[in-house]
Amino acid sequence: MAEILTSKSSKGDTIVEVAPHKTSEGLILVNTGNGKGKTTAALGVALRAVGNGLRVLILQFIKGGSTYGELKAIKALQEAGMPIEIRPMGKGFIFHNKETSETDLIAHKAAADKAWQMLTDEVMSDRWDLVIFDEINYAIKFGLLPVEQVVTLLEQKPARLHVVLTGRDARPEIIAKAHTVTEMQVVKHAYEQGIKAARGIEF
Amino acid sequence: MAEILTSKSSKGDTIVEVAPHKTSEGLILVNTGNGKGKTTAALGVALRAVGNGLRVLILQFIKGGSTYGELKAIKALQEAGMPIEIRPMGKGFIFHNKETSETDLIAHKAAADKAWQMLTDEVMSDRWDLVIFDEINYAIKFGLLPVEQVVTLLEQKPARLHVVLTGRDARPEIIAKAHTVTEMQVVKHAYEQGIKAARGIEF
Repeated sequence: MAEILTSKSSKGDTIVEVAPHKTSEGLILVNTGNGKGKTTAALGVALRAVGNGLRVLILQFIKGGSTYGELKAIKALQEAGMPIEIRPMGKGFIFHNKETSETDLIAHKAAADKAWQMLTDEVMSDRWDLVIFDEINYAIKFGLLPVEQVVTLLEQKPARLHVVLTGRDARPEIIAKAHTVTEMQVVKHAYEQGIKAARGIEF
Repeated sequence: MAEILTSKSSKGDTIVEVAPHKTSEGLILVNTGNGKGKTTAALGVALRAVGNGLRVLILQFIKGGSTYGELKAIKALQEAGMPIEIRPMGKGFIFHNKETSETDLIAHKAAADKAWQMLTDEVMSDRWDLVIFDEINYAIKFGLLPVEQVVTLLEQKPARLHVVLTGRDARPEIIAKAHTVTEMQVVKHAYEQGIKAARGIEF
């Protein structure tokens, strides 16, 4: 239902405004937890969205996070004329493990700042209907992105833009901004049974 | 490591056969829980798998479970020459809610048996590398498919075939057969905030 707002003008008249129907508020979705399927579910959303004619950008905050299979399938969708793009954020967000040296962290931080600018430009450009911030929660966790910066971007993004954020250990500030948060939890995992990851299925 | 099998021929000679290398045991994955992303993550796996050249069949156990967006994107992948197919299991597994009448249930059961035969034929045909049983847990839950029948199929399927089963309330018998089980849990949901589902994102 349209919202009716009333206020007083400087002359004391009552001004009645009808706010536009909020049909197309962009959703902020978060996939977190220690289980499988956070990035995979985001890819599924991308597939559904692009099939509906939405323009989709996937930004990867871990270099090499996407596999050959995903890239090839996305390329096939592009060649079919669908507006979908996947873009690694380059050096900015590389980190191999928690043991990264302090020197490395400083270099990464500088590169991350540059990558952040590109990310902000894309989000604010209004060229996209859905932007996936894949594994961004890691970049926040490892101190490469201040969480406040991400929260501010979520507040300032085009209202109708949908955003999906993925990665373990989503910060409470991000969860507070989200409309829908799903936690993927491991009930059991093939690794525990000594089975190595299957190409095409798990990577 | 390749397995070496020896046997005696009818003339008493020793025949040495080298069994094919068992690199590729098929995984059984289950996406369950009350949260978003069960089917969506399965779609993401399908995208990754087909990009890796695997032949993918998606069987839908709820009629109309897939949306226009998914179907269109999958059609685009097919037109790009990728071996992916999505198939509704037809009338067999329709059910609108838990209030289905007993008469309806009997009709559904008969149709479900026919659908089950088709499903079994596809799984056993060895034409596929990945088969997604989308929302099959509902069909089991509502008594349209005996869980033992599904377990037996998982035991008898081609060894290298990957299977993903989705839907809430996965039965313990199914979980016992799976290599990897992920529970998608709602932390918060847009519905709770009075926001209606967004086309292209949530359906």
